[in-house]
Amino acid sequence: LVAVDSPSFFGAMQTLKGVGMKALEIPTDPLTGISLEALELALEQWPIKVIQLTPNCNNPLGYVMPEARKRALLTLAQRFDVAIIEDDVYGDLAYNYPRPRTIKSFDEDGRVLLCSSFSKTLAPGLRIGWVAPGRYLEQVLHMKYIGTGSSAPQPQLAIADFIEGGHYEPHVRRMRTQYQRSRDQMIDWVMRYFPEGTRASRPQGGFMLWVELAEGFDTLRLNRALLDKGVQIAVGSIFSASGKYRNCMRMNFAAKPSREIENAVRIVGETIALLNAQTD
Amino acid sequence: LVAVDSPSFFGAMQTLKGVGMKALEIPTDPLTGISLEALELALEQWPIKVIQLTPNCNNPLGYVMPEARKRALLTLAQRFDVAIIEDDVYGDLAYNYPRPRTIKSFDEDGRVLLCSSFSKTLAPGLRIGWVAPGRYLEQVLHMKYIGTGSSAPQPQLAIADFIEGGHYEPHVRRMRTQYQRSRDQMIDWVMRYFPEGTRASRPQGGFMLWVELAEGFDTLRLNRALLDKGVQIAVGSIFSASGKYRNCMRMNFAAKPSREIENAVRIVGETIALLNAQTD
Repeated sequence: LVAVDSPSFFGAMQTLKGVGMKALEIPTDPLTGISLEALELALEQWPIKVIQLTPNCNNPLGYVMPEARKRALLTLAQRFDVAIIEDDVYGDLAYNYPRPRTIKSFDEDGRVLLCSSFSKTLAPGLRIGWVAPGRYLEQVLHMKYIGTGSSAPQPQLAIADFIEGGHYEPHVRRMRTQYQRSRDQMIDWVMRYFPEGTRASRPQGGFMLWVELAEGFDTLRLNRALLDKGVQIAVGSIFSASGKYRNCMRMNFAAKPSREIENAVRIVGETIALLNAQTD
Repeated sequence: LVAVDSPSFFGAMQTLKGVGMKALEIPTDPLTGISLEALELALEQWPIKVIQLTPNCNNPLGYVMPEARKRALLTLAQRFDVAIIEDDVYGDLAYNYPRPRTIKSFDEDGRVLLCSSFSKTLAPGLRIGWVAPGRYLEQVLHMKYIGTGSSAPQPQLAIADFIEGGHYEPHVRRMRTQYQRSRDQMIDWVMRYFPEGTRASRPQGGFMLWVELAEGFDTLRLNRALLDKGVQIAVGSIFSASGKYRNCMRMNFAAKPSREIENAVRIVGETIALLNAQTD
């Protein structure tokens, strides 16, 4: 049994399911992250072995968990002797400098497995990530061996070159600024083109926006309606193991703002309005 | 429960174990491959779901399973409705031309999952393999997604370029000739430097030699004795899920024959003789 923040990254949840583990969704505050109160209750009641979460620039909500809560979470994990899998893949893309600390940075007994990757900061196609597994090194090495064997050295060498040349920091600095601007623009468009009452997250890093529509609205239906308009959204329900968040969606603002993107947001907004009118 | 040829590739066995499956070792003839009689008996007695084997240029034995036996194996799999995972990673390195047929090439109802890779033919570091999963496509896609996600495109593009340029066939032709020569040289050295009574396989492809020492000889002990001589062998027991083949070892002749390699083989032979003398 693995406790996860909720909404949670669908890839992680699918992997849990695929290896025969069960995800337990813990209510999560859109600004401060996983509810420690709910988590404590869950730890008391169920045989949870691991807490898996994305505390920095959360996917999909975009919050950065405050430092005090990160420490409190670690204390909780110590008390119940569970591991923490910390996905920090967006941490370098936090808009505020210096970048937020990881839970791992407070870890003293090696119970935090810090996972990250260059997939979000440099290029998805490099497929190079890493894990700092603490006391779980042996198990992780074994899983890596039986799962993928070794990894291609060429992309790793290319990245090593890039970092050695001093290009990594300037690159993420530039991307942070660009994504922050894109965030503001995207929120602006959503507020302009989506129906009144729509709520959007205010991401503190990365390039994902979480949008909440009226209670009862069905984004699966929205996606079907958008099918022949060449626009697609990430429906909220895939971020839940139990099919929650049907009235939510995730939008991506990694690409630079453009007429085309504004147009797509407008089309989504109009389609929502259309579906609302049909329901009324 | 998965039936495997025996001795069998340790990586495959470790993966089976890692995902909670059990390997059942089926006796295997060093010239014609997995015993169909033993396999039939096993299929009758145990709830086997899959047969996993390396019929072409077997690792570690080096045989190529005769075509008639490949067909008979497939018929058996059909009769008991089990899948076949066919590892063909050395198939392109068979010394005889045209290369041996795969079991997959006889498959009519999609029960064969053909796996291969450029790791043995072009370069291990590319980490690019493939699978033709027949009727199991959906499951394999899902396993791939939750296991590794997507794969780096750069090495794939490099390989596509290499093949498009017409370099692949000449390359494997050259390697086949080179490996065949190295095989003969390696067998020659083993016969010259190893104690009388040593038996070696006669690989029909690839670059692995299987060596059988006297009953009761312990290659784990040999490896320890070789430790400070800068030579290492692959002990036979890692090719068995149940610790068989302790008197066997696998040698690799991928590198071009050289003074250094001859010297290493001589050192192994002398160390075997030394250990034999100590035991006597």
